[in-house]
Amino acid sequence: MAEPMDYASAGVDIDLEGAAVASLIASLGRSTRQPGTPGAPVDLPGGFGGLIEFGDSLLALATDGVGSKLQIASALKQWGGVGIDCMAMNVNDLLCVGAEPIAFVDYVAVPKPDPETHAALGASLAQACRLARVTLAGGETASLPGIVTELDLSGTALGYVKKGDAITGEHLKAGDVLIGLPSSGVHSNGYSLVRKVMSHVGAEYTDEAPFAVASVGRTVLRFEGRDDLSFTLGEVFLNPTRIYCDPVVDLFHACATEDVPFSISDLHGICHVTGGGLSNLLRLHDSLGWHIGSPLQPHPEFEWLQAAGGIETREMYRTFNMGCGMILAVDQDHAEGICEWLSQRMSGVAIIGSVNDDGHKVTHALEGVEFSHY
Amino acid sequence: MAEPMDYASAGVDIDLEGAAVASLIASLGRSTRQPGTPGAPVDLPGGFGGLIEFGDSLLALATDGVGSKLQIASALKQWGGVGIDCMAMNVNDLLCVGAEPIAFVDYVAVPKPDPETHAALGASLAQACRLARVTLAGGETASLPGIVTELDLSGTALGYVKKGDAITGEHLKAGDVLIGLPSSGVHSNGYSLVRKVMSHVGAEYTDEAPFAVASVGRTVLRFEGRDDLSFTLGEVFLNPTRIYCDPVVDLFHACATEDVPFSISDLHGICHVTGGGLSNLLRLHDSLGWHIGSPLQPHPEFEWLQAAGGIETREMYRTFNMGCGMILAVDQDHAEGICEWLSQRMSGVAIIGSVNDDGHKVTHALEGVEFSHY
Repeated sequence: MAEPMDYASAGVDIDLEGAAVASLIASLGRSTRQPGTPGAPVDLPGGFGGLIEFGDSLLALATDGVGSKLQIASALKQWGGVGIDCMAMNVNDLLCVGAEPIAFVDYVAVPKPDPETHAALGASLAQACRLARVTLAGGETASLPGIVTELDLSGTALGYVKKGDAITGEHLKAGDVLIGLPSSGVHSNGYSLVRKVMSHVGAEYTDEAPFAVASVGRTVLRFEGRDDLSFTLGEVFLNPTRIYCDPVVDLFHACATEDVPFSISDLHGICHVTGGGLSNLLRLHDSLGWHIGSPLQPHPEFEWLQAAGGIETREMYRTFNMGCGMILAVDQDHAEGICEWLSQRMSGVAIIGSVNDDGHKVTHALEGVEFSHY
Repeated sequence: MAEPMDYASAGVDIDLEGAAVASLIASLGRSTRQPGTPGAPVDLPGGFGGLIEFGDSLLALATDGVGSKLQIASALKQWGGVGIDCMAMNVNDLLCVGAEPIAFVDYVAVPKPDPETHAALGASLAQACRLARVTLAGGETASLPGIVTELDLSGTALGYVKKGDAITGEHLKAGDVLIGLPSSGVHSNGYSLVRKVMSHVGAEYTDEAPFAVASVGRTVLRFEGRDDLSFTLGEVFLNPTRIYCDPVVDLFHACATEDVPFSISDLHGICHVTGGGLSNLLRLHDSLGWHIGSPLQPHPEFEWLQAAGGIETREMYRTFNMGCGMILAVDQDHAEGICEWLSQRMSGVAIIGSVNDDGHKVTHALEGVEFSHY
């Protein structure tokens, strides 16, 4: 292979996307809604969820789509997981600001409506609503034969948090402990690269996966309760994104009670590990550093992708979640207690590292895995 | 011409879309959120906005896209209005339940990000936020070269209404008076048919419009302040959808004061005239009828489309807004007062008809314009 594969060569230029988004944001002035009135904007570092004022609460909106993972679902006509992916991408973002998701709307664009596909999508969204404990408050299906060649799915989630309980990153400090929550696989980011690797090695999604699939941290849909140990590559790569409402919303609730010795002020930052991988941590604070000294174990499909694509380790950690889908930065005095509390509700949760003041960068137990910009 | 053109022949099958959406909804169970808790669903007739409980308020989400109007914007690289279209389609839906829009998020899917396009979209969204008086609380730009061939734009708006002030249609009764609010042109529905007519007659969007464009009820973007009287067909068909927050939100506010003799309980129903045209009225009530005896004047582009496409009059009123983008059904004792109040804030507002108990159908001054199902 002449060149190692990377995300840009797979057709996604993160820098160009960044420039496009910056152009869009630069065009926006301040809101016309005045501070203290419903809808007035609240500025937070990190930019995960857009918070607005609403009485004694803050409301948060998150909007995102499933992306090119949908192309695998389209090719296999397997829509059972993508509603969960769509929900997860949005509600997991809301959790990062301490918000509890309460409602969701979906947007589907298709070249031509197909009742069978929509029934399968609906079942997937219904399951997602139960997993995320939200109300499906609406949706839109648009027929756009001149714009989309196959199905696109996105959505918007609404959440709320009591004023004063938002997780803003302002309490982050050196010494804070990082708790990693296991992912269920590739989740919904990096699929342009997944597809490029598949094409490069001439593998079919109906091929049996050439690695042992069973692993910690899988979500419910495809792997639990199956006795056979053979899975196709399609099943592996369509395994839905983990929704972290259970146990993270429960943790928020527990923090508000006297039942646990820690409180919401001990949760200093939460990171949803999406496109950009571990570099997402840099969005939580302007100057602090992050060291992952004891990473969670990546699932075997990551190892296979790296070998099959000849992808550099650093690129893997900049593109994929590598087994860890969410990271909580918590006060060191309560880190073990919070980790233990979470572990009882989700297997595979572990302390993976700490916050430091050695500069605004992410470092890792693996040499070369280092990021100094998002 | 062998057959008159209609919407289905332009590639949009409303019945098939309905079946697809019905499949999706049938797959959804009830929400896991219990009545009385934040996020619990509230059922309303009409289905315009999904209302959920939130303390003393109800929150509403609306999600929709711009649709195939985007293909004209793409062809002309004219993005200045589509942000307004996207906002309008959503916030106008929220108004129908009595909700005041407060925040918005956009979702853009592109084959490849382009900073210039995004800057123009951003400017359009910023103008839309000012017109709708909402905070832009986030957004997502997705690069999906395998799914979209050109730009798709959708969005989600969040609104709220005090519990008890929601407009549910339950107070609608025979004798209620219909007040029509003028549209700014074709708005964002029916563009598959617009494009088919254009193609049928071999017209270019850069051609000068073969009719007098100046007319009542145009929105600000393209027509106000222009001294010249020549407009291209592209300018006419890209004129942005009217946002009705001004004056409808102001009407809600006025109703809550002692300054006016009418109150929110005099507003019995509000209809956003979108795809389906006047048949949308049927969604507001299960059994009442609607007669439009004094319709607003359609803009000249509707007349041109009908003649150029050989489209039947009934089909025009089932596909387009025909000059009237929003209809308020109000108590007859206050109809003149409310109409006068609105007229002072938006020129062209007029009483256009009334509610009756002659069966669940829409009738019209023009013979043959009659709808008995949505």
